[in-house]
Amino acid sequence: MHHKTVFRTLGHILRIEAAFLLLPLAVCLGYGELEEAKGFALVLAVTAAAGQGLILLCRGSERMQARDGFAAVALCWIVMSAFGALPYVVTGGIPSYVDAFFETVSGFTTTGATILTDVEAQAKGVLFWRALTQWMGGTGVLVLSLAILPKSGEGSVYLMRAESPGPIKTKLLPKIQDTAKILYKIYLLLTVGEILCLMLAGMDWYDAVTHTFTTVSTGGFSVKALSVAAYPSLAIRWIIIIFMFLSGVNFSVLFFALQRNFRAVFRSEELRWYTILSAAASGLIFVNLVAVGGELLNFDNFTHAVFQVVTVATTTGYATTDFALWPTMSQLILFLLMITGACAGSTAGGVKSIRLVILTKNLRREVRRILHPRLVQPIKIDGERVEESTIAGATLFFYAYILFFAVGALVVSWDNVSFVEACSASMTCIGNVGPGLGQLGPMGSFAILSSLSKVVLSANMLLGRLEILPLLLLLFPSMWKK
Amino acid sequence: MHHKTVFRTLGHILRIEAAFLLLPLAVCLGYGELEEAKGFALVLAVTAAAGQGLILLCRGSERMQARDGFAAVALCWIVMSAFGALPYVVTGGIPSYVDAFFETVSGFTTTGATILTDVEAQAKGVLFWRALTQWMGGTGVLVLSLAILPKSGEGSVYLMRAESPGPIKTKLLPKIQDTAKILYKIYLLLTVGEILCLMLAGMDWYDAVTHTFTTVSTGGFSVKALSVAAYPSLAIRWIIIIFMFLSGVNFSVLFFALQRNFRAVFRSEELRWYTILSAAASGLIFVNLVAVGGELLNFDNFTHAVFQVVTVATTTGYATTDFALWPTMSQLILFLLMITGACAGSTAGGVKSIRLVILTKNLRREVRRILHPRLVQPIKIDGERVEESTIAGATLFFYAYILFFAVGALVVSWDNVSFVEACSASMTCIGNVGPGLGQLGPMGSFAILSSLSKVVLSANMLLGRLEILPLLLLLFPSMWKK
Repeated sequence: MHHKTVFRTLGHILRIEAAFLLLPLAVCLGYGELEEAKGFALVLAVTAAAGQGLILLCRGSERMQARDGFAAVALCWIVMSAFGALPYVVTGGIPSYVDAFFETVSGFTTTGATILTDVEAQAKGVLFWRALTQWMGGTGVLVLSLAILPKSGEGSVYLMRAESPGPIKTKLLPKIQDTAKILYKIYLLLTVGEILCLMLAGMDWYDAVTHTFTTVSTGGFSVKALSVAAYPSLAIRWIIIIFMFLSGVNFSVLFFALQRNFRAVFRSEELRWYTILSAAASGLIFVNLVAVGGELLNFDNFTHAVFQVVTVATTTGYATTDFALWPTMSQLILFLLMITGACAGSTAGGVKSIRLVILTKNLRREVRRILHPRLVQPIKIDGERVEESTIAGATLFFYAYILFFAVGALVVSWDNVSFVEACSASMTCIGNVGPGLGQLGPMGSFAILSSLSKVVLSANMLLGRLEILPLLLLLFPSMWKK
Repeated sequence: MHHKTVFRTLGHILRIEAAFLLLPLAVCLGYGELEEAKGFALVLAVTAAAGQGLILLCRGSERMQARDGFAAVALCWIVMSAFGALPYVVTGGIPSYVDAFFETVSGFTTTGATILTDVEAQAKGVLFWRALTQWMGGTGVLVLSLAILPKSGEGSVYLMRAESPGPIKTKLLPKIQDTAKILYKIYLLLTVGEILCLMLAGMDWYDAVTHTFTTVSTGGFSVKALSVAAYPSLAIRWIIIIFMFLSGVNFSVLFFALQRNFRAVFRSEELRWYTILSAAASGLIFVNLVAVGGELLNFDNFTHAVFQVVTVATTTGYATTDFALWPTMSQLILFLLMITGACAGSTAGGVKSIRLVILTKNLRREVRRILHPRLVQPIKIDGERVEESTIAGATLFFYAYILFFAVGALVVSWDNVSFVEACSASMTCIGNVGPGLGQLGPMGSFAILSSLSKVVLSANMLLGRLEILPLLLLLFPSMWKK
């Protein structure tokens, strides 16, 4: 790899991170949390200095190649998390560095799994930073750097490709910087829109902003211990449902919608499957809840069913009720939704609906091939032919995903947890969802796990967010050679 | 499809099944179970008549094609199970036909999941038939028909391909009939060998024969309610471990071993991975058992660890202890072994080690491709290049496997069972293992499940045994056209 290019990119990201640290610093000052403010100022200085230092040290004009893009993205996410964890430690919010690192990775990867046992005991500034990390991670910090830095050169296409989720990368506009800008405009639009809606529905500005940060990024960190269950208002719950759902839609489809190109919107097979799957899952869970206890047949429970399905399918991870207490079938449906995730090109994690659509079409094609051995049939998505290499990539991704899920579950199972806890912990982390089941459910905490488990789950969160390959690349010694 | 060819094949299989029914009939007579003997005689007559009728009705000389082979295999397994369930119902051993069908599918597919709650209350003849169905299913009844019927024509290669498990089909000898004969010779050798060993270790002939039938087929039905835990003798346990392990080895490797071609044996990567995986899993479980309760550090527990690993990895499904009571990590390891299975070309189920080796090598190759975009690197197994279509088939199979596991688990979860019970029930059935976890563990029974669950799990057992595609083919209307 080209060390200078990669480490210079790292420097840029650290400078951006330092700039973002100004926000929680301001919040601390606004709420009179002076001790915490000092902590944030210190971390800000250290991060900015580290970033500036890297940029100065790594001047030069090597050209970026595909593997440099992957390496830069993988390293950036690790380093960004390493620095992002410092405010928790310095302010005393989370004394253990491993715990703080877990919480930060959970933030940037928009997972939302937490080691906090009493969220509301934290300082306002610290919780603001926690929510902000999710907003930063939502569409990718490197994509942001492309949108705001004037000249990122030719290599930027590789950064974009390595950081954006999904098997098919859509270039909305010929220039990569313009595409990045559009993504961020949509993201900002969703952000502003939700803040306004939530404030109109009666939330104060702090709650509205932090919940918006963690909704549009499909992150799921809440400033309330009870998560969204703390807000009984149905209006607030449905606003969040709608914005979670929208944030799970491929941003290029949202772009078409904004352009009033509704034909393109309705042509999207992934959107269709994502909608059908969410509706079917909500229906099944509602029926299951009603069947288990007949008195559950009301609009509140309908809202619970839809909310929990959308929050898990979009890999957000809020909760309006403790779904870890639901009947087996409902829990299993949520577990399976952790795998599927929402749409590619959104802020959501998981395997992504588009991959499952490709895989299922591929299965159908293979059976057909036995019937008609000479028929060569391409797989089509939205009327366009899918490359065979994309199909191969999707099937491979699915295997790698299950493989790392299994490794994670195995490590966690050594701790004193149940089968469902070990499996759901690993699945929720690699899927960037957040809460698991059992003791690790939405009202529980990952604090009960060992440090080893926390590190491995952090790795799983990064693997899920970066779609596996970039991180694996770092394990190859030949990667590190010039 | 060519209806006559397919249904004639069905007729042959029913005649073979009728011939096999003579054995439990003889056992009934030998043990003076006259009522049961009458039942077996009746079913024998009906089955033979049905088979003969089909053969007479479907005379003609259409040539068999690939899809006819798949259709014949899928239909044979369903019809064979439909008739094979009759003895249970007629003798009154299992009054419900759905239960009897489940038990028979579980037998032929060598799964070993049972709906019996009191095994030892059954007649000797019935339990003999139950064990025999596993022996028949072990290497495939159609393969047997190829080995014993004089002229099966050119199409037989398709039958063999559709019924034999694994992504790469090895033709041991140029003629398909000769290959089938060799497979059966090895199978008979294992059978006779184990019967002798078990009798030398002190088992009576009935227990030795029935346990051998269900060991070499990696089936796992025992005539004892306690399974192998009923035999405290370490010699018996280790004999069964060794024969289970051998039956999980690719029969072509066993063929090389018999030919003293040990170079070919040691070159087998699949055997190596299967051995390493089994050893590692045994070691981990032993450590886990010792860590949970220090007094467990003894040879008995070492035997338990190895026995349970080998019985699950080979998808046999015996037990020497109730592993549903083991700590989480040990249970999770067994659950993951249900997925991996043993070697292709053996009597074992599961995804098969060879596919996982191919998938893992493929993952490694993809990461390398980012590093060296121009390097074209084939994947090699045992020093030979694996076709890209085989790799694509293996990845696709993995997806389909997980997909049908999920469907099965979802259906079972509607019954009043826990998360681990629903997941393990579906996994143990599609993997042809047998016992699940929780209430469905080795000392439990599938009787608690609903009829719907039993039917869906039966489908999963068949999907697992026939490696998915043949059964899916039956769902395509164009399959049934001329």
